[in-house]
Amino acid sequence: MKKYFAEIFGTFWLVFGGCGSAIFAATVDYGIGYAGVALAFGLTVLTMAYAVGHISGGHFNPAVSIGLWAGGKFSGKDLPGYIVSQLVGAILAAGALYLILTSSDKAIGGFAANGYDSLSPDGYSMMSAFIAEFLLTAFFLLVILGSTSEKAPKGFAPIAIGLCLTLIHLISIPITNTSVNPARSTSQALFAGGDYLPQTWLFWVAPILGAIVAGFIYKALFNKA
Amino acid sequence: MKKYFAEIFGTFWLVFGGCGSAIFAATVDYGIGYAGVALAFGLTVLTMAYAVGHISGGHFNPAVSIGLWAGGKFSGKDLPGYIVSQLVGAILAAGALYLILTSSDKAIGGFAANGYDSLSPDGYSMMSAFIAEFLLTAFFLLVILGSTSEKAPKGFAPIAIGLCLTLIHLISIPITNTSVNPARSTSQALFAGGDYLPQTWLFWVAPILGAIVAGFIYKALFNKA
Amino acid sequence: MKKYFAEIFGTFWLVFGGCGSAIFAATVDYGIGYAGVALAFGLTVLTMAYAVGHISGGHFNPAVSIGLWAGGKFSGKDLPGYIVSQLVGAILAAGALYLILTSSDKAIGGFAANGYDSLSPDGYSMMSAFIAEFLLTAFFLLVILGSTSEKAPKGFAPIAIGLCLTLIHLISIPITNTSVNPARSTSQALFAGGDYLPQTWLFWVAPILGAIVAGFIYKALFNKA
Amino acid sequence: MKKYFAEIFGTFWLVFGGCGSAIFAATVDYGIGYAGVALAFGLTVLTMAYAVGHISGGHFNPAVSIGLWAGGKFSGKDLPGYIVSQLVGAILAAGALYLILTSSDKAIGGFAANGYDSLSPDGYSMMSAFIAEFLLTAFFLLVILGSTSEKAPKGFAPIAIGLCLTLIHLISIPITNTSVNPARSTSQALFAGGDYLPQTWLFWVAPILGAIVAGFIYKALFNKA
Repeated sequence: MKKYFAEIFGTFWLVFGGCGSAIFAATVDYGIGYAGVALAFGLTVLTMAYAVGHISGGHFNPAVSIGLWAGGKFSGKDLPGYIVSQLVGAILAAGALYLILTSSDKAIGGFAANGYDSLSPDGYSMMSAFIAEFLLTAFFLLVILGSTSEKAPKGFAPIAIGLCLTLIHLISIPITNTSVNPARSTSQALFAGGDYLPQTWLFWVAPILGAIVAGFIYKALFNKA
Repeated sequence: MKKYFAEIFGTFWLVFGGCGSAIFAATVDYGIGYAGVALAFGLTVLTMAYAVGHISGGHFNPAVSIGLWAGGKFSGKDLPGYIVSQLVGAILAAGALYLILTSSDKAIGGFAANGYDSLSPDGYSMMSAFIAEFLLTAFFLLVILGSTSEKAPKGFAPIAIGLCLTLIHLISIPITNTSVNPARSTSQALFAGGDYLPQTWLFWVAPILGAIVAGFIYKALFNKA
Repeated sequence: MKKYFAEIFGTFWLVFGGCGSAIFAATVDYGIGYAGVALAFGLTVLTMAYAVGHISGGHFNPAVSIGLWAGGKFSGKDLPGYIVSQLVGAILAAGALYLILTSSDKAIGGFAANGYDSLSPDGYSMMSAFIAEFLLTAFFLLVILGSTSEKAPKGFAPIAIGLCLTLIHLISIPITNTSVNPARSTSQALFAGGDYLPQTWLFWVAPILGAIVAGFIYKALFNKA
Repeated sequence: MKKYFAEIFGTFWLVFGGCGSAIFAATVDYGIGYAGVALAFGLTVLTMAYAVGHISGGHFNPAVSIGLWAGGKFSGKDLPGYIVSQLVGAILAAGALYLILTSSDKAIGGFAANGYDSLSPDGYSMMSAFIAEFLLTAFFLLVILGSTSEKAPKGFAPIAIGLCLTLIHLISIPITNTSVNPARSTSQALFAGGDYLPQTWLFWVAPILGAIVAGFIYKALFNKA
C-alpha cells in the first residue's frame, strides 16, 4: 500500500506544483513565464523522487510506468494500481487548484490543460503535437532507464530525471502546453472541459507509444549482457 | 549552543537572501522577477543546509521544526530554543535589509511581507491563502521527511529541500508572496507595519497546521517498520 | 556498437532539445528567452550524460571528442566513429525539428543556426566570433577534463559539464548563437541554408582548435604525475 | 605551480563568464537579465571548482583566500601567490572581453564594473554598498567554510558554493553590480576607467572585512572540538 500512497502524493505534487505555477504565476506582472513553469514541473519530480522514490520508484506518470514495464524494469501486475494512484493524485491536485481559484472568484481559464490546433498555445497542429509528445516521452524514458541503471552514478537519478522534465517543458510548452504525462492531461481536461476533453486521447496515445518504443529500444541496445 | 547559532545564521540568510532579492532586485529594469526570487529563497536553504545542516539539522523555519517534531524526528524540548533562534535570525535580517534601504533613502514599501486579500500580490482571498499555505507547507514537510530518511540517497537532501522551497515560491508568490515560514512572515510584517501585522496569524496557523498534518501522515504511512 | 548508439541518441537530444527550445519557445509571449535556451542546452548534456555517459563517455560533440583525444583521455581510433555518430544524431534531430515546424506550416527561419557578421544575433564580427568560440570551447574542455579526473568528486561530472554548457550559452548566444559544437552547427546550417552554410567553417575550426589547445594545456599543467 | 595555474584559469573563467554574460547578454532583446547573470557567475565557480578544486581549493577570489586563512583553513604564506594569480586571471579575462567587444566596434560601457552612488545600477549609496558587500561576503565565507567542513556531505561543496554566488548576485546586482571579489572589481575597473577606479577601494575593504569576520566567527562558534 505504501507505494500507492507514494504515487498519489507524488502525482498530486506534480500537478499541483507544475500546473499550479502555470495557473497562478506564469502570466502575472513579474511572472515566471514558461521557463519558470518548466522549472516548477521538473522540481516537483526532483523533490518527490528524493522523498518517496525509494518507496515507489517515483513514477508519478502512467507513461513512465508503462515505459519502465516495456524496458523490463517494472512488473506488469503493478501497472493498474500505479496508474489508478496517479490518476487519483492528479485529479485531487486539480481539485485543490480549482478550490484555490474559485475561493477568490478567479476564472479557471485553460487550467493549464494540454491541447493542439486551436488549443495549442502557439497554434501547432495535431501532427506536430503528436510527434513532439512521442519523441519527448521517448527521450524522457531513455533518461530514466539510463540514469537509474546499475552503472550510472548512484543517487543522481532524481536530478537527471527531474531536470529532464524541466528540459522537456522548455522545448514544448508552446506546442501542446507539454504533457508527456496522461494523468496530468486528464486531470486538467476534466476541469477545463470544453474542447480540451476530446483532445485528451492524444496525450494518452503519443506519450505511451513513445515510452513503449523507448523501453524496447533501451532494452535492445543498451541492456544486453 | 552551536545549533542555536546555526539556526540564527541560517534564518538570517533565508530572510536576507530571499526577501532581499525580492526587495532589491525583483522589479527593477532587467530584474529577476518572481522566478529569480523563488530561486533565491531556495538557494538560501540549499547553501545553509550544506553549511550548517550537520550542526542544527538546518530548519530555519518554525513550521519545519514543528513538523519534524510531529513526524517524530525532532525532540519537543528543543522546539522553544529553535523557534526563538529562528525569530532572532529573521528579525536581524529584516533589520539589515531596512538599514540598506534607508541608508539610500529608499522606501521600504511592502518589504516582501506576506498577505492576503488586498495585500495579496494578485488579490487572492484569505481562504485561498490558507489552503495554499497549508498544502505547500505540508508537501514541504513530506519532502523534508522523505529526503532525509534513512533509505533516501545520502547527501542530496539539501538539494531536494532547497529546490522544494524554490518550487513552492514558483507556485505561490502571486497568492501570498509565499510564506510557509512564520519567522519570515513575522520579521517582515514587523517592519512593514500597517495591515500586514494583523494578517500574520494566518502565516503561523496555516503553515504549522500543514506541517503537523504532514508529520503525522508521513509517520503513519511511510515510516512503519 | 553500443557507444555509437549512445552518441547518436545523445547528440540527437542535444540538438533537438537545445535548438528546439530556441526555435519553439525563445521568442513567443512568456517565452524562455536566451536564459531558457541556455538552460535547455545544458540540461540535454546533463541528462544524457547521466543516462549514457557510462556507455560512451557522453561527448555528443566532435570538439569534445577531439579535445579529449588531445588531452590523452580518448583513443584516436575511435574518433571517426564518434564524429560520424554525432553528425548522424544532430542531422536526425534537425530533421525532426523541421518535421514539427512544417507539419504546422511554420517558417523555419534561422533554425537556431550559428553565424557571425550579419548572421550574429547581435551583430558581432567574424573575429569576435572566432575568439569567443575558441575560448569557450577551451574552457569547456578544461571543465570536462578536470571534473572527470580521478581526483574530482565521483558522480558530479555530468552536473559540472552540463551546467558549463548552460554557462557558455548564457555568455555567447548574442555573439554567435553559441556553437562550441561543430555537429550542432552543421545540422542547423544544412536546413537553414542561405548564408549559414558558408559560415560553418568557423564553427568547426574555432571550437576544435580551442579543444585541442585545452587538451594540451591540461595535460601539460595539471596531469603531471 | 599547479595551484597557481588553477587559480589563474578559475578566476579567468569567473570574470570572463560572469562579467561576459552581463556585458554581452543581459540587456539585449530576449536577454538573460540580472537573473541570468547571477546564474552565470555561480556556474563559473561551480564548474571550475569541480574541475580544479582538488588542485588549488578553487578560491578564485582574494576575499575567499583571506577568509579561509582567517578561518584557519589556508596557510598565510600561500596568500600572496594566490592573490597575484587571481588578479592575473581576472585581468586577462577582462582583456579577452575587451578584445571581443572592440573587434566588433562595440562600446565597452560600464564593462560590468562595480560601483556605488551614481555608479550603482539602482542608485544605492556608499553606505548601503558597504553593508551589502560586507554581509554578503561574510555569508559566502560561512557557506564555504561550512560546506567544506569534515562533517558536511562529501562532493557537494562546489554546488553549495557556486549557487551561493548565484544567490548573492540575485540579491545585490542592483546595489553594486555585486562584487564580493576584489579581483573581479579591479579587472573591470581598470578597463572601465573613469569614476570606477576610485571606487575600487570599497570592493577590497568591505569583502575582505566580511570574509575575515566570518572566518573568525566560524572558527569561534562552529569549529570548536
